[in-house]
Amino acid sequence: MSTAGQVIRCRAAVCWAPDTPAAIEEIEVAPPEAGEVRIKIVATSLCHSDLYHLLESKAADGFPTVLGHEGAGVVESVGPGVTEFQPGDKVIPLFLCQCKECRFCQSPRTNQCERAWTRIRQEIMAGVESRFTCKGKRVHQLMGTSTFSEYTVVNQIAVTRIDPAAPLDKVCLLGCGICTGYGAAVNTAKSQVAEVGITVFRVSEVLVCPGGGGLQLRRVRPGSRGPGCSHGLQGGRSQKDHRCRRQPGQSGQGQRVGRHRLPEPQRPEPAHPGGDLWDDRGRGGLLPGVRGERGGHGEVMRSALEASMEAWGVSVVVGWTDMFDITIRPRHLICGRTWKGSMFGGFKAKDGVAGMVRAYLEKKVKLDEFITHNMALDQVNDAIELMRNSQWVRQETCTKTKRHHPARGNRHRFPV
Amino acid sequence: MSTAGQVIRCRAAVCWAPDTPAAIEEIEVAPPEAGEVRIKIVATSLCHSDLYHLLESKAADGFPTVLGHEGAGVVESVGPGVTEFQPGDKVIPLFLCQCKECRFCQSPRTNQCERAWTRIRQEIMAGVESRFTCKGKRVHQLMGTSTFSEYTVVNQIAVTRIDPAAPLDKVCLLGCGICTGYGAAVNTAKSQVAEVGITVFRVSEVLVCPGGGGLQLRRVRPGSRGPGCSHGLQGGRSQKDHRCRRQPGQSGQGQRVGRHRLPEPQRPEPAHPGGDLWDDRGRGGLLPGVRGERGGHGEVMRSALEASMEAWGVSVVVGWTDMFDITIRPRHLICGRTWKGSMFGGFKAKDGVAGMVRAYLEKKVKLDEFITHNMALDQVNDAIELMRNSQWVRQETCTKTKRHHPARGNRHRFPV
Repeated sequence: MSTAGQVIRCRAAVCWAPDTPAAIEEIEVAPPEAGEVRIKIVATSLCHSDLYHLLESKAADGFPTVLGHEGAGVVESVGPGVTEFQPGDKVIPLFLCQCKECRFCQSPRTNQCERAWTRIRQEIMAGVESRFTCKGKRVHQLMGTSTFSEYTVVNQIAVTRIDPAAPLDKVCLLGCGICTGYGAAVNTAKSQVAEVGITVFRVSEVLVCPGGGGLQLRRVRPGSRGPGCSHGLQGGRSQKDHRCRRQPGQSGQGQRVGRHRLPEPQRPEPAHPGGDLWDDRGRGGLLPGVRGERGGHGEVMRSALEASMEAWGVSVVVGWTDMFDITIRPRHLICGRTWKGSMFGGFKAKDGVAGMVRAYLEKKVKLDEFITHNMALDQVNDAIELMRNSQWVRQETCTKTKRHHPARGNRHRFPV
Repeated sequence: MSTAGQVIRCRAAVCWAPDTPAAIEEIEVAPPEAGEVRIKIVATSLCHSDLYHLLESKAADGFPTVLGHEGAGVVESVGPGVTEFQPGDKVIPLFLCQCKECRFCQSPRTNQCERAWTRIRQEIMAGVESRFTCKGKRVHQLMGTSTFSEYTVVNQIAVTRIDPAAPLDKVCLLGCGICTGYGAAVNTAKSQVAEVGITVFRVSEVLVCPGGGGLQLRRVRPGSRGPGCSHGLQGGRSQKDHRCRRQPGQSGQGQRVGRHRLPEPQRPEPAHPGGDLWDDRGRGGLLPGVRGERGGHGEVMRSALEASMEAWGVSVVVGWTDMFDITIRPRHLICGRTWKGSMFGGFKAKDGVAGMVRAYLEKKVKLDEFITHNMALDQVNDAIELMRNSQWVRQETCTKTKRHHPARGNRHRFPV
């Protein structure tokens, strides 16, 4: 029986207040209005930005809300005027929209969309409009998406149709984290990454991009001694040692990038997945770890900037936070470094996510390796606790039928 | 009578200790050693970085010293192995060298030179080697140049030959400040400046670069309402107002760049030279002012970053300081801004200065308008006081015969 045009009652994980567990509730999802799309969510993963809203920023006017902005699903129905989508289309909802009409969307220099700024209150990372109600109350849709619900309604400029062959329980990860980290290197840092760039990933993690010549991204953990810039990353840090020291003739891969210590991870010898995560040719990798106190987040951003190379080093800050300031010395910029920010990895949201899905299907980008737990929707609080407490959790995929948990490989795989 | 190969006794302004007046002393200038050039200084101007060394950083091991790194002169003699220069060549000594051999010099992506890092102790902005002695003591050559001396000795990689037609009492300004500010826009910010870029100039001054289409730099003073980004610069500032607000359809010149207030200058209605400083077609300009306490320097850097446009705004920090940190919110980068540093405006030192001299002779770049006082060498302490106390001093040219003082036009011209 078609549900088009009707209110859908379904389950969702409702967070009624900051810093409290989510509750599995029956909510009402209104039919899509003009220009909107109602989506049956098939799979969603948990992102640190969800935790940021729930546990860190705690903006009182951002609740009650349904978390989730890394989801994938199938179009259930569309509102008046929507011609781009049809019921049955596989789609990914987007926390960053792409109207394709504003001056930002029409410029190659940014992936921002002017309409996002009218729709989204970034201070609380919440959409101002919502099609959700629960127990008579309006429920915010976090970042306009709210994928921790069996159904959600999204504006058509914030949803992208993907290849019908895409496995939704994998490509949901492209809704935020993977695109953010990968894009920060290949889109935002761009060619400079061929020499040395460092990306602070999701505030608490770091993508290190050393290399010489082509794009060569390798995962390096703090204190390790490996290819690329690991040599420089393990040096001692003092006021005197802040400047990069190079030896004549050093160049490209294997060069020093500075005598800087990244903040130590909380566990001295953390579990560390082997191999490169992006592909088998070492074209990408994440440095996990370096989670810590909020002050530590600023410290790792500073360290990442300082550890990038003088003269032409690039450091990219990604993720989202508005809880603290970062402090640096002006001379670390004056000596030639560039500090950039990147939202959603610089990907034009609709085009970029659809393209990354194709890249995954063509085995150019890895996703499966980021997933280590499949969990049911009613285990959302377990997932939150896992992300909050674990050093090495990268992503968490929560569907209604499966559970797994990434970045520790299979070692911590939950029974299915 | 030739002085080649002999010690030259001449006058110099020696600073014996931090935060004390310079003393006009007779010093001994040794003959140039291998690869060095001895220069008779004809004109030099005072730069805030000289004051930084003398009055702010006060590094005890940087004294005694002779200040000055914006000079121009004539080659008196050359050391063994020097073939690039001949006695009589008009030259400008350079605080940043260009060896043309290291990987940085051979890369178009930076104007740094690896040999600079072995020669110069940047912490105290002083050359480690000196050819100066006075009263039996070795006297540091600030930044390897020390142009507040009638003669100086500079390594051949830190001097550039200029057009013989160049008036030395004008082009001396190209030794630092003019190249630094202009280059920060055209070299470091590059094409992004076509939309909106903001350059913090010499830590205490700001170059605002709004516009749309071609390079359009205009001078805007804090609180003014003029073309370009002045509209945005005068808005109120609060936590809520930090985000840029745009109106649909706004673009290019005249657009808002944010609701941010640059720190007010200390004088409510400061003298303000009319017209654009770079040329008559409004292609460049400096926002002077915003001098203040050291903490204020960090504040203006932060404001400049925040006032640059989200999505693709570029802010460039120039000058030199190591006295304080800058603090920003990560989200001001994450929303798409770029924060860059620039030393000497990104100019390859030898090539860039020689090229800027040609541009001046071809009337593509203005210099005369920056000069408002001609002063004799023995007035160096007056010049320092003028720069320290005045809001609007931009440059100060000190030769042995003339005096003037810039950025107030002719209003404060000293009697010649």
